[in-house]
Amino acid sequence: MPLRASLRPGDTIGILGGGQLGRMLALAAAPLGLKTHIFCPDPQSPAFEVADAHTIADYEDQGALERFAETCDAVTYEFENVPAGTAAFLENRVVLRPGARALEISQDRLTEKQFLEAAGADVAPYRDIANEGDLFAALAAFGGQGVLKTRRFGYDGKGQVMIRAAEDTDTALERIGNAPAVLEALIPFDREMSVIVARDAAGTCGAFDVSENLHRNHILHTSTVPAGIGPALAETARAMAIRIAEAMDYVGVMGVELFVVPSPVGETVLVNEIAPRVHNSGHWTQDACLCDQFEQHIRAVAGWPLGTFERHSDAVMTNLIGDACDSWPDILRDPSARLHLYGKTESRPGRKMGHWNRITPHQAGNGSSGQKS
Amino acid sequence: MPLRASLRPGDTIGILGGGQLGRMLALAAAPLGLKTHIFCPDPQSPAFEVADAHTIADYEDQGALERFAETCDAVTYEFENVPAGTAAFLENRVVLRPGARALEISQDRLTEKQFLEAAGADVAPYRDIANEGDLFAALAAFGGQGVLKTRRFGYDGKGQVMIRAAEDTDTALERIGNAPAVLEALIPFDREMSVIVARDAAGTCGAFDVSENLHRNHILHTSTVPAGIGPALAETARAMAIRIAEAMDYVGVMGVELFVVPSPVGETVLVNEIAPRVHNSGHWTQDACLCDQFEQHIRAVAGWPLGTFERHSDAVMTNLIGDACDSWPDILRDPSARLHLYGKTESRPGRKMGHWNRITPHQAGNGSSGQKS
Repeated sequence: MPLRASLRPGDTIGILGGGQLGRMLALAAAPLGLKTHIFCPDPQSPAFEVADAHTIADYEDQGALERFAETCDAVTYEFENVPAGTAAFLENRVVLRPGARALEISQDRLTEKQFLEAAGADVAPYRDIANEGDLFAALAAFGGQGVLKTRRFGYDGKGQVMIRAAEDTDTALERIGNAPAVLEALIPFDREMSVIVARDAAGTCGAFDVSENLHRNHILHTSTVPAGIGPALAETARAMAIRIAEAMDYVGVMGVELFVVPSPVGETVLVNEIAPRVHNSGHWTQDACLCDQFEQHIRAVAGWPLGTFERHSDAVMTNLIGDACDSWPDILRDPSARLHLYGKTESRPGRKMGHWNRITPHQAGNGSSGQKS
Repeated sequence: MPLRASLRPGDTIGILGGGQLGRMLALAAAPLGLKTHIFCPDPQSPAFEVADAHTIADYEDQGALERFAETCDAVTYEFENVPAGTAAFLENRVVLRPGARALEISQDRLTEKQFLEAAGADVAPYRDIANEGDLFAALAAFGGQGVLKTRRFGYDGKGQVMIRAAEDTDTALERIGNAPAVLEALIPFDREMSVIVARDAAGTCGAFDVSENLHRNHILHTSTVPAGIGPALAETARAMAIRIAEAMDYVGVMGVELFVVPSPVGETVLVNEIAPRVHNSGHWTQDACLCDQFEQHIRAVAGWPLGTFERHSDAVMTNLIGDACDSWPDILRDPSARLHLYGKTESRPGRKMGHWNRITPHQAGNGSSGQKS
C-alpha cells in the first residue's frame, strides 16, 4: 500500500520525543491546522500539554508504536537517537520524515563523517578508534592531541574526552567506557557557527542565515545572527549545508554545526556535526523570521512547500539553563526580549528550561539573508 | 481569602470559550510557560487540542465551574456573552480578567454607549428603544433612518435591522424579536477602523497601530495596517481606545471598533463598539509584531507587564470564511503569506475557518507605530 506523501489540514503528525523541541514543533503545527500526537516514555513530557494526543510508552514497544502509527498521517522525531528498529518499524507503516537513513548516518560519528566527506563537505581530520593501538597511531598523526568521542549516543559534551598530553591517553578509552570511538584532530577554530537547512519533499532546499554560537560547559549558551563573518564565508557555509541535505535526499530541518578555521587563504569552514532535526541554534528564527525552523520542519514533514527563510531582525538567542530561568520576570520587562519557557516543572543544573531571544531591527548589509536554492 | 494577582510559570490560565480565540490564546500562553484549561460546552472545540486541560460543560454548570476555578490561577474569556452569573460565580473564587464589569458594559449596547460617553469617547447619535413610540420618535430625530440593534447578544450583523424608509419601520421591531434595542443614527462613514488596546494589572496601557477594516456580509473580511489615515487621526483613535480601557479599569486586551467620519474640521472618529477580548481585527499582530494581541492578553491576565506594541512589518489580514479555507495550498506557496487555520473539521458558509496575513516590509513614515502610554 503506497503511503500518502502529502497531508491536509486536520491530519495528524506524530512526533517521537516529548521534550522542548517536540513541544515547539506541536506549537508550530497548530496554526497550519495540523494535529500532533506525541510519543514519549516520560509521563512529564513538556510537549504533551500542547498536543492533541500523546502516548506514554517505550520507544521499542511495538504494540504502542503500531497504535501510534495508525493515528498518524506522518511521523517525525525530535532527537537523533531513535532506535533503528523503531524507525524501520514505523517506516513500514507511515511516512517517516526525515527517514531512517538520516538517523543511521547521524547516530554514528564515523558513518556521519564518511557521509559528509562523500557529500563534498569538509570535516576535521579524524580516525576510527577501535582499540588502544588505533588511538596511539591516531594521536601520533595528530601531534599527540585530539578529542576522543564515542561513535554513538554523545550529546552536550557527554561521551567525549579531551586529550592534550600523554597522561590523558592512558585513561581516555576507559573514560568513554571503551566504546567504539573516533579521534578528531584538535581544531584551532576561530568561531563556532551553525546553519539551519531545510528541504521539502519536492527537493526544494533553503537555509536560514548563519548563526554564531557560544558554548559554556559543552552546552550551547548563545546563538547570534548575523554571525561575525563575511558574506562569502556565510554563503560557503550555507551552500555546504544545502549540499549535505541534498546528498541525503533529506526531508525536514537539519542543524549543521561548523567550525570557522584559519587557513592560508583566509578563514574557511569545517563541518563539526549534523543533527537530523530542529536545532537549539535555530531558536532565534522564532522571533526574527516570518517562518521559523519549527514551521519549516512541519511543512516539510507534511509534504508541503517550505516557507520563506528571510529574517526581518537581528537576534541573540540565550539558553536558560537550570536556575537561569528564574530571570523570567526581567526578560518579560525587556521590550526587545522574547521569552520561551518549556513548561518543565523541575529545574536542575544543566537542564534546558527555556531560552530567550533579543530582537533588534535588522541592519542593512550585515550579512546575507536566507533564501531558497 | 485574597486572590493571588500575579502568576508564575507553571500556573494555569482558565479560558471560557473554546473557539479560535481561545485556541490562539492557548498557543500564546505556552511559550510563556503557562498552562491553559479551556471551559466550553462544545465537545468539538478547536482550543481543546492545544490546551493542557479542558472541561466540557454548560457555562452555568456551577459544579463544573467550581472544579474549573480550583484548577486555575486566573480565568479569562474569549467571548463577551459570558453569563453575568457565571462571571460573578468565578470572580468570587479566582482572579477573573477582564472582570465582570467589562462584560456587564459590553453585553448591553445601551450601557456600553452610556459608558463610552461618560469616558469621553465620541459615539454616533443613538436612542434607547423600548417600544414603537420610542422608535418613531428616534427616527423623527434621525431624519427617518437608522440602524435598529438589539441591546444584547448581537454579533456579525445578527440582531440588527437597517431602516432606510418608512416601510422598513413597521416590521423592524418584530424582526429583532421585539427585544429591548437602541436606534443608531446612520453614519456616513468613510472608513471602518479598529484599535487593539491592552492594559496590564499595574495600569500600564498601550495600543497597537490602527487597522482599517473591510466587512462583507457583516463579517470582517480584511484588516489592513497601516490604515489609510493620517498620523494625527491615528493618534486620536489610539488615545480614545486607551481612555476607554483606563475608564473601565480594564485588564487585558480590548478591541475598539471605530468609524472615520467626515466633519467640518476634517475627518474624525466615532466609537462603534467595544469587545472585551482579543479581536479578529487584531490577528495581523501575529506576524507583524514581536508581541501579538494574544500574548499581550495572556501577560495582562497573568498579572505580568505588557510586551512591546511595535510592529516590524505592514500587514493585510484576510479571513477565511467557509470554503475560502480551501485556498490553503495557495497561501502556503506564497512566501509573504502566513497561514492560520483553526482546526475546525466542518466548513460551513459564514463560518470562520482561519485567516492569513500578507506581510510586507515596514515602509518608513507610513503611520505611527504602537507604543505604551
